[in-house]
Amino acid sequence: MQEKYSIGIDVGGTNTDIGLVSANGTIVARTNFSTSAYSDINLYMDEVAKKVKEIMSANNVAEIEGVGIGAPNGNYYTGCIDNAPNLHFGGNLKVKDMLEARLGVEVVLSNDANAAAYGEFVYGGGKGMKDFLMVTVGTGVGSGFVVDGRLVHGHSGAAGELGHSILIPGGRQCSCGRKGCLEAYTSARGICQTCRELRAEMPNYNGVLANVADDELTSKIIGEAAAQGDELAIKTFEQTGFWLGLACANAVTFSSPEAVFLMGGPLQAGDVFVEPLKKSFKEHLLNIYHNTVDIRMSELKANDVAILGAAALLKNK
Amino acid sequence: MQEKYSIGIDVGGTNTDIGLVSANGTIVARTNFSTSAYSDINLYMDEVAKKVKEIMSANNVAEIEGVGIGAPNGNYYTGCIDNAPNLHFGGNLKVKDMLEARLGVEVVLSNDANAAAYGEFVYGGGKGMKDFLMVTVGTGVGSGFVVDGRLVHGHSGAAGELGHSILIPGGRQCSCGRKGCLEAYTSARGICQTCRELRAEMPNYNGVLANVADDELTSKIIGEAAAQGDELAIKTFEQTGFWLGLACANAVTFSSPEAVFLMGGPLQAGDVFVEPLKKSFKEHLLNIYHNTVDIRMSELKANDVAILGAAALLKNK
Repeated sequence: MQEKYSIGIDVGGTNTDIGLVSANGTIVARTNFSTSAYSDINLYMDEVAKKVKEIMSANNVAEIEGVGIGAPNGNYYTGCIDNAPNLHFGGNLKVKDMLEARLGVEVVLSNDANAAAYGEFVYGGGKGMKDFLMVTVGTGVGSGFVVDGRLVHGHSGAAGELGHSILIPGGRQCSCGRKGCLEAYTSARGICQTCRELRAEMPNYNGVLANVADDELTSKIIGEAAAQGDELAIKTFEQTGFWLGLACANAVTFSSPEAVFLMGGPLQAGDVFVEPLKKSFKEHLLNIYHNTVDIRMSELKANDVAILGAAALLKNK
Repeated sequence: MQEKYSIGIDVGGTNTDIGLVSANGTIVARTNFSTSAYSDINLYMDEVAKKVKEIMSANNVAEIEGVGIGAPNGNYYTGCIDNAPNLHFGGNLKVKDMLEARLGVEVVLSNDANAAAYGEFVYGGGKGMKDFLMVTVGTGVGSGFVVDGRLVHGHSGAAGELGHSILIPGGRQCSCGRKGCLEAYTSARGICQTCRELRAEMPNYNGVLANVADDELTSKIIGEAAAQGDELAIKTFEQTGFWLGLACANAVTFSSPEAVFLMGGPLQAGDVFVEPLKKSFKEHLLNIYHNTVDIRMSELKANDVAILGAAALLKNK
């Protein structure tokens, strides 16, 4: 009998990553396409289904156990993506139903960061832990809580939206329509805004980012500049680390986790980001939590954890 | 055979309340004394033990099942109160061991707000809910989370310190040593500080609070002034409600509760406090949580819930 495979899908604001996952948790093949190129949910779901069939066919897999999807504002109970601020599709999207109709297999949906937390729990640094928190930093800022050995879905099915806790009341405009959310400060977009604001305050700055147009700045370019010792880039990550460390310390007051795991593209900047983050976390941590919790990097490859977590959700409904 | 009674104790920064609780969850007798009058933990524990024996004797109860204690920074796993900023006793206090030695019965300790949440869960508005949050407003601001039908203790045993999440980075000095904690704004003390600050900004104010000395202001006096329509008092509760509503909306992003229950002395001010709080909560709530969560008042008497919750912890270790 053929080995049972499953599909894990990570729906990001920028890209959609699809992986064919073996029964033992290995991603044996993967593909991706641009999420942001689609504004019609039906055409987008057609493309998802097409890519799933292609990856199965290319790997001689005739049958799959099902599809797990991690998506921004993905609701575990309803199977809908609800008004995700980082996706071009508005409204409540019946993603589970739409994909089940196209593929004829079971589909399970969850918040993308919840899926990542679940991946870390089953395959990564969270193995054996009962209480931890995963924070994902990318186009948005997401989170997933594992409490007493179980993923928290909450009453609505949409628990774990740390990125939309308000860090600075009345602060920066967030894509969700409110002001001052953590995401507005420490997402890839937030990092770019911080860089632009700091640059405007440094009239004599003449470094590698001096001539990068506002709309061409990316967290990747800033990360590369920081690696070269650029003053503006380093300041940008210091400020971002300060904010994210503060938010992680706040999160600890809720569930008292053993670890706060971090993952996502901007963290590739390394120590220039992570050291100020750890410093701020320690400074802002309530004394009773000292020596009970660490900031840790995800132990899974950045591009693997969301796919593995999504696929693993299938086995753990 | 005699009915089994238990003792529930609520250790507050100001008062210690002790209740004799029947097997069906009725407080059949109660007593209290001043916590803040004691600075030596041994003398304080002697007084606790003395009061417990007195209340048993006065009610002809020869034997109890045990004692449940809710206390600031009370740790469920270790049985210690760890550096509670609102208590005069410093350090790590082995409260469970100390009281077991004095009484010869089992003692269970938890965070005071966790105990209150547990009381609401077993006896109050949280009956039948799987996910809710209790926020207690008094000398400090505490919280307890029930997630998927279970009280959250976390890795350290000290989960649920919403009062020490940072609301305004770099803001007011908090008794915990850090700056900007929710507690510094919305505890009884925080409410008084807000009132003083607003009064200083109103040079023409001539209301009932005009001649109350700074150190004689209490949240109770301000609440009474608000009931009489006093402008300064009303503004004070509007501002406090704004902050607490924002903090409750932030808390929803973590566990997506079905309700946020509130309890504590300052809430006796009523609508003048609760209406701005609900307005701010709604304004600051992420859109995906609309219509999934309500702000509600505790359904138990303000002075009962902590005692009942503490006593109930005995049965649910």
